[in-house]
Amino acid sequence: MPNPTAAMLVIGDEILSGRTRDSNTNHLATALTAAGIGLAEVRIVRDDAGAIAGAVKALSVAYDYVFTSGGIGPTHDDITADAVAEAMGAAIDVREDARAVLAAHYERSGTDLNAARLRMARIPEGAALIENPVSAAPGFILGNVHVMAGVPAIFEAMVASVLPTLTGGAPLLSRSMDVHRGEGDIAGPLAELAERYPQLSFGSYPFQRGGLHGANVVARGHDAEALDAAMADLAERFE
Amino acid sequence: MPNPTAAMLVIGDEILSGRTRDSNTNHLATALTAAGIGLAEVRIVRDDAGAIAGAVKALSVAYDYVFTSGGIGPTHDDITADAVAEAMGAAIDVREDARAVLAAHYERSGTDLNAARLRMARIPEGAALIENPVSAAPGFILGNVHVMAGVPAIFEAMVASVLPTLTGGAPLLSRSMDVHRGEGDIAGPLAELAERYPQLSFGSYPFQRGGLHGANVVARGHDAEALDAAMADLAERFE
Repeated sequence: MPNPTAAMLVIGDEILSGRTRDSNTNHLATALTAAGIGLAEVRIVRDDAGAIAGAVKALSVAYDYVFTSGGIGPTHDDITADAVAEAMGAAIDVREDARAVLAAHYERSGTDLNAARLRMARIPEGAALIENPVSAAPGFILGNVHVMAGVPAIFEAMVASVLPTLTGGAPLLSRSMDVHRGEGDIAGPLAELAERYPQLSFGSYPFQRGGLHGANVVARGHDAEALDAAMADLAERFE
Repeated sequence: MPNPTAAMLVIGDEILSGRTRDSNTNHLATALTAAGIGLAEVRIVRDDAGAIAGAVKALSVAYDYVFTSGGIGPTHDDITADAVAEAMGAAIDVREDARAVLAAHYERSGTDLNAARLRMARIPEGAALIENPVSAAPGFILGNVHVMAGVPAIFEAMVASVLPTLTGGAPLLSRSMDVHRGEGDIAGPLAELAERYPQLSFGSYPFQRGGLHGANVVARGHDAEALDAAMADLAERFE
């Protein structure tokens, strides 16, 4: 059975302008790989309702799971929830369960649940809430789309609470080895290996360290025996 | 006149598996912003010819410029050049000018220009070469698509040599200010500012530092006077 596939959608002008480095993609990629879910595509789009809705539509039909990051705060540029609702054809309004979560949180800190904060309780009809242990404002799951916060600490907490709900596959295993040759000398033998072990995928990532150059050769797949055999084969070719 | 728009396409299983963090997107985003070119979308796809060609087709019609990163080395998984040629309807083969560049480079180091390395001279018909001062193997420009290496040092060198060939716009200016209030208290005044200065865009990025919380409010636009006025207005509201 093939492993489930996933896509990530990062929402944020601040990433596209270069002001902020996105770290959520790498975090999610690592978590999904460990869970045996293949992250197959990532898109980063602007804080623009049409761009967000268009990407959500395209990705939610093409992949088993979609994860979004960013744009669910209280300010005027936080439009992800409404754009996702539109893309998925769901109604959206302030929802009582989300409002109650926010009200309890802000009451504890003596903070006013004003109109701006109340926008964070806008949740599409039929969506399940994703808990936010950091700042209360929930994410949500609508169909196969998981809408999460952009602030890394909150995104990571939401990923942790969402992961157990996903159907994973056999974990993707990998083995790697540094080969101290030019990539051009590695390429031929590596292509032979790729042909001999069609159930594995091979990549080669060149490096230069302290005057030495070479490539880190990585094999990935679900078959641990084949991986070990391929790495032994590789080692023999470059001894 | 609106500023030119751009998209970035990152090619690489190693990014999607979480093994490698992509730093090229942030580098390009910063360089394009300074040049007055708006990076509007980023996609990351697998080392898969169909996925690469599909993304190149979609992005090259939607934006003024497309920049790709990765998949132009000598190994079997380096398929970007062929996929881009297919997407753009161009023929591709080993090209004499690229072969000569590689031959000269490998002759200097006494390295064999074998079949694997010769694949890096596969350049689409009609494409202009992008110089690679690090390891010789060139990138290329085909139509509005700029094909560059994934290794950050080479990618950055190629961006530097490509930038002067692009038609930029008025540089996008920004001003920012830390406001030590909850984002929910900033949201209302910020929405008023966004309405008062429709030529600017406003973002708010929450932080927690040493027990203090607040948000960094960023205004962006081409009108320096409006930016200064908006920031003075903001400061007045939160004094």
